[in-house]
Amino acid sequence: MNREQLFAQILRKRSYLCVGLDTDAARIPKRLLGEPDPVFAFNRAIIDATAPFCVAYKPNTAFYEASGPEGWTSLAKTAEYLSTQYPGHFRIADAKRGDIGNTARQYARAFFDTLGFDAITVAPYMGADSVLPFLERENHWAVLLALTSNTGSADFQFAVDHGEFLFERVLRISQGWSFAGQLMYVVGATHPEQFQRVRALAPDNFFLVPGVGAQGGDLAAISRAGMNRECGLLVNASRSIQYASSGDDFADAAGQAAADLQREMDVLLMEYLPKE
Amino acid sequence: MNREQLFAQILRKRSYLCVGLDTDAARIPKRLLGEPDPVFAFNRAIIDATAPFCVAYKPNTAFYEASGPEGWTSLAKTAEYLSTQYPGHFRIADAKRGDIGNTARQYARAFFDTLGFDAITVAPYMGADSVLPFLERENHWAVLLALTSNTGSADFQFAVDHGEFLFERVLRISQGWSFAGQLMYVVGATHPEQFQRVRALAPDNFFLVPGVGAQGGDLAAISRAGMNRECGLLVNASRSIQYASSGDDFADAAGQAAADLQREMDVLLMEYLPKE
Repeated sequence: MNREQLFAQILRKRSYLCVGLDTDAARIPKRLLGEPDPVFAFNRAIIDATAPFCVAYKPNTAFYEASGPEGWTSLAKTAEYLSTQYPGHFRIADAKRGDIGNTARQYARAFFDTLGFDAITVAPYMGADSVLPFLERENHWAVLLALTSNTGSADFQFAVDHGEFLFERVLRISQGWSFAGQLMYVVGATHPEQFQRVRALAPDNFFLVPGVGAQGGDLAAISRAGMNRECGLLVNASRSIQYASSGDDFADAAGQAAADLQREMDVLLMEYLPKE
Repeated sequence: MNREQLFAQILRKRSYLCVGLDTDAARIPKRLLGEPDPVFAFNRAIIDATAPFCVAYKPNTAFYEASGPEGWTSLAKTAEYLSTQYPGHFRIADAKRGDIGNTARQYARAFFDTLGFDAITVAPYMGADSVLPFLERENHWAVLLALTSNTGSADFQFAVDHGEFLFERVLRISQGWSFAGQLMYVVGATHPEQFQRVRALAPDNFFLVPGVGAQGGDLAAISRAGMNRECGLLVNASRSIQYASSGDDFADAAGQAAADLQREMDVLLMEYLPKE
């Protein structure tokens, strides 16, 4: 999917919501446990309930790898279900990979070719040659960690070199890479005070924003500071949607939670999306 | 496996070699292509041929993920083969994971519980809470990226804050974490000039050293600068062993390549391992 198509989806849905599929096998509602693949059955129900209200899905690979090869089968089935049933939704593998060039190419094969994702999250620590293999594919995206939402983001991302934080250096240097137009960035909602600086360093790129919901980020604040002329934001919610109810009504509750966020986003788009 | 056991293996084998299992499905020798799982059959042959000469194995997950769920099955079978047939060898999942706390716990389950590895490589960018879940398990290890062997290591790892490189900050700060004794570090052989500084910052930890062989690092130089009283080094070779021959003699050639490195290491241990 290219940027114009993603923006068109945002306008059509009046939403920039990304639904995280961080499916914990231990939290599957009882009535699905008899299914041949309960994790996939749960994901399918969550996807069907939330699709009208979101523009992207983002499974986190950790939750699938925890079950070994069987978990990867659930991930592959989820990716295929999205590709075939909801081809208009943007598909992000939240994998946070990062390795030397010949290895990164294997990861690109894994997530873009074998599983069919549009995008993959990538860690910046190993530098350009660990990221470029993801950018060379037309209409595919690397979502580079810049400023993460967790408390540990303070440990290294705020190291200062010549007045520049490490996360700013990641933004500045990566903007000079070939195919930088195929980059998105992870920018946590828990750092609203940094959003304007981050946007100034990457005016045209989409930001994938975790940290709204369970982690306490403020949707209005980051939308005001971060929205650009193509919206430029994909705000993720995972647990607050997937586990909105632990009962038999889990899918309805997930749909409701997604619809609530979509309505907020509709208002914020009216307020902050530049009119031309 | 604990540190004393690992050191005992090093003394018994007169080797600190780690054999990388970066098995590219496209490079499997022809005569194995009829096997039900050619990747596993190749790994098993490489392991059987090299086991007398090495103390550790390190599959890189990218090469398995590239084949989807089937690849994860090959990885799981390889991990199980190592656990059951070679329990005295240290098992590292080269996965370079890194994510927020509740997600990192899922990765710890995936690699320590489901697959049975002793250690996993982890990226530092997201800070303490992304690494601690791997350190809390007795006799299990997080191998933190400090100074990597690739050209991209120059992009961010040498950012300077108050006279301290980022990779030095990673070493210093992580040494203050709970369970820092369960940390190892990735330190590339392509930076021999930094080895003494790195060793000074982490005097007691093991270093996993890629970059000897295909990437051109100097085994003698890094052994001189990096060896501590328990050796403290695991030097990895992947392609130079796995693909020593592409013919039917691939296993013999791998065994020879591993034996050659072991003989060099024997001499270096005599020279540089402190006598008491």
